[in-house]
Amino acid sequence: MTPNQILAAFKRTGARIETKGRVKLKDKTGFSTYYTPGVGVASTHLAKHPEDARKLSVKRNSVAVVSDGSAVLGLGNIGPYGALPVMEGKALIFREMAGIDAWPIVLSTQDPDEIVKTVLAIAPGWGGINLEDIKAPECFEVERRLIEALDIPVMHDDQHGTAIVVLAGLMNAAKVVKKKLVGLRVVISGAGAAGVACAKLLKAAGVHDIIVLDRGGAIYLGRPDLNASKQELAALTNPRKAAGTLSEVLIGADVFIGVSGPGLLTADHVRSMAKDAIVFALSNPIPEILPDEAKRGGAAVIATGRSDFPNQINNALVFPGVFRGALDRGVNEITEAMKLKAAKALAALVAKPTSGKIIPDVLDKRVVPAVAKSIR
Amino acid sequence: MTPNQILAAFKRTGARIETKGRVKLKDKTGFSTYYTPGVGVASTHLAKHPEDARKLSVKRNSVAVVSDGSAVLGLGNIGPYGALPVMEGKALIFREMAGIDAWPIVLSTQDPDEIVKTVLAIAPGWGGINLEDIKAPECFEVERRLIEALDIPVMHDDQHGTAIVVLAGLMNAAKVVKKKLVGLRVVISGAGAAGVACAKLLKAAGVHDIIVLDRGGAIYLGRPDLNASKQELAALTNPRKAAGTLSEVLIGADVFIGVSGPGLLTADHVRSMAKDAIVFALSNPIPEILPDEAKRGGAAVIATGRSDFPNQINNALVFPGVFRGALDRGVNEITEAMKLKAAKALAALVAKPTSGKIIPDVLDKRVVPAVAKSIR
Repeated sequence: MTPNQILAAFKRTGARIETKGRVKLKDKTGFSTYYTPGVGVASTHLAKHPEDARKLSVKRNSVAVVSDGSAVLGLGNIGPYGALPVMEGKALIFREMAGIDAWPIVLSTQDPDEIVKTVLAIAPGWGGINLEDIKAPECFEVERRLIEALDIPVMHDDQHGTAIVVLAGLMNAAKVVKKKLVGLRVVISGAGAAGVACAKLLKAAGVHDIIVLDRGGAIYLGRPDLNASKQELAALTNPRKAAGTLSEVLIGADVFIGVSGPGLLTADHVRSMAKDAIVFALSNPIPEILPDEAKRGGAAVIATGRSDFPNQINNALVFPGVFRGALDRGVNEITEAMKLKAAKALAALVAKPTSGKIIPDVLDKRVVPAVAKSIR
Repeated sequence: MTPNQILAAFKRTGARIETKGRVKLKDKTGFSTYYTPGVGVASTHLAKHPEDARKLSVKRNSVAVVSDGSAVLGLGNIGPYGALPVMEGKALIFREMAGIDAWPIVLSTQDPDEIVKTVLAIAPGWGGINLEDIKAPECFEVERRLIEALDIPVMHDDQHGTAIVVLAGLMNAAKVVKKKLVGLRVVISGAGAAGVACAKLLKAAGVHDIIVLDRGGAIYLGRPDLNASKQELAALTNPRKAAGTLSEVLIGADVFIGVSGPGLLTADHVRSMAKDAIVFALSNPIPEILPDEAKRGGAAVIATGRSDFPNQINNALVFPGVFRGALDRGVNEITEAMKLKAAKALAALVAKPTSGKIIPDVLDKRVVPAVAKSIR
């Protein structure tokens, strides 16, 4: 569809999500049961037993999709109104794919401290918090503080949703090229939310040779210009303490993961990598390299974030199932072990991985239950 | 229903409200239109034209039902979890009666400054804010600051919803007893959110002899123990500067409006009032006086907040229509003039008021459109 056709579709639908009553108010009995005076019974009960809100209220099945609009898609800092359609889209996916009551909450502040205070203030009625499109490094602090303070699951999807799908895809890509996952030399271009989370999860999965690059080149322990979160990352990655540009550190690498920006990678770059290179060019909508060009460079497995190419690395494979599982089992925190299990479960849905099929389709009905089962 | 039966109904339904997709995600086209990459078109547009969020997003039809749980029904300060079933009930009524997408937002703070900051922070995605069950005097400051800062309608329903129904009921009750509204001597027991708002709206409707009482008796200009909001109230009401207890100021009054607590009023009190007394005993679930006893005291018209007696003064007659009208017409602020119009419209729905019928039924399908039409 053209941009104009898409905008027309948004105008026609008005919103992509709405509310629906689970009971009808046809007579006075409905009113006096679910509103005054009957509701007083439930209120009195929950005031004494707040833990039962998970059974007796919207908290049982609800997720707030929270964004400050500071890092939306490939569009950057476009604020709460720019972020709203994306958060609505996620709320729609939560509903349609996992039966979850999600609602977009877009914020008029981008101050990490105020974001934390706001989410803490509105948390009691929600069963989970999906943070979204909050820029790095603020996103790390916001997520950490919320996880520490709240007894409901909090997940920054740009980080962990992406990392889980990337790991799942990489597990199967390694099979396709007959290399061991843990022995792969991985280069990640981009040290934002997604890049950092991918590096951490790959590391947790046993991959030890990971180099992450930001605009200043390869991140290594001791590089003078690193902020706190990049110092932490440097300590976890780049064991050979490689310095230099993308062209330099890519030589001989098995895997390129792009979570940075359009057009950074050329066929020559791919040629400089190890044989049977794996290229995940996830910048959206324009990838770091187009699949045809990566193929010309000799890449054996290519994935992008787009639905019009094979191997779409899409967070929608993860977030509905993660929260479905967490809500169903009253899980308060999404741990590293759960993320690893979710990646394995996702990878296992592709029985025989091929270069054109390393990851299940977002419409595959087995995806949500498989991911949900890992959250325990 | 017994309390146990009601609690069982809440357990059975789990929640009273859920979300619903307005579009289906059956194929990749749905995904690529309403999520990545298509959603980028809408995001780019709204970043440049945030005013179009009222057409292209959930903001077009959504209301946050916000409470800190500090003054819930007749139950008092029972916190966010206690408040949650009530806010859900309101969200259900918004959906079922006015087709509005409302969602409960219960807060973990009761500090007025933090409540204001929180609502301001989450405001961009909402088309309106219904404040609920926030105690006085904090509710006045919270509402005032939010109205000043936001360009969407904000209404504290305990104040204005109640005041509008009370005025509507009183207009018709005056007709029943053949007295002029503006000449009525009115005594309001309770100077909380509802009492203060009723006094102000009756005054705006032309009623000039209004006495409001709090626990310290009649509020009059110069009474030494008044806080800021009660001083303001004293300046507006009690032109005869009457002091004293309820028994004392009630003598000769035409109207008693109770928004205070159960059982304050006796048949003897009613006997001391003017002939054809009007008694609105709105404390819920136990009124200030039961209808039978008020009748024994000679009351000509009796209303309560309960559905099992005639003349139910119920905010559900007002809030769905007020927000329906505001959302439909892009009204940014609910003015005093609109509230007066809404009360008149509500009263006019009872063609021939009688002592047993001064106010329409909450299930009367004409109510929401009539109230909505007044919000312009």
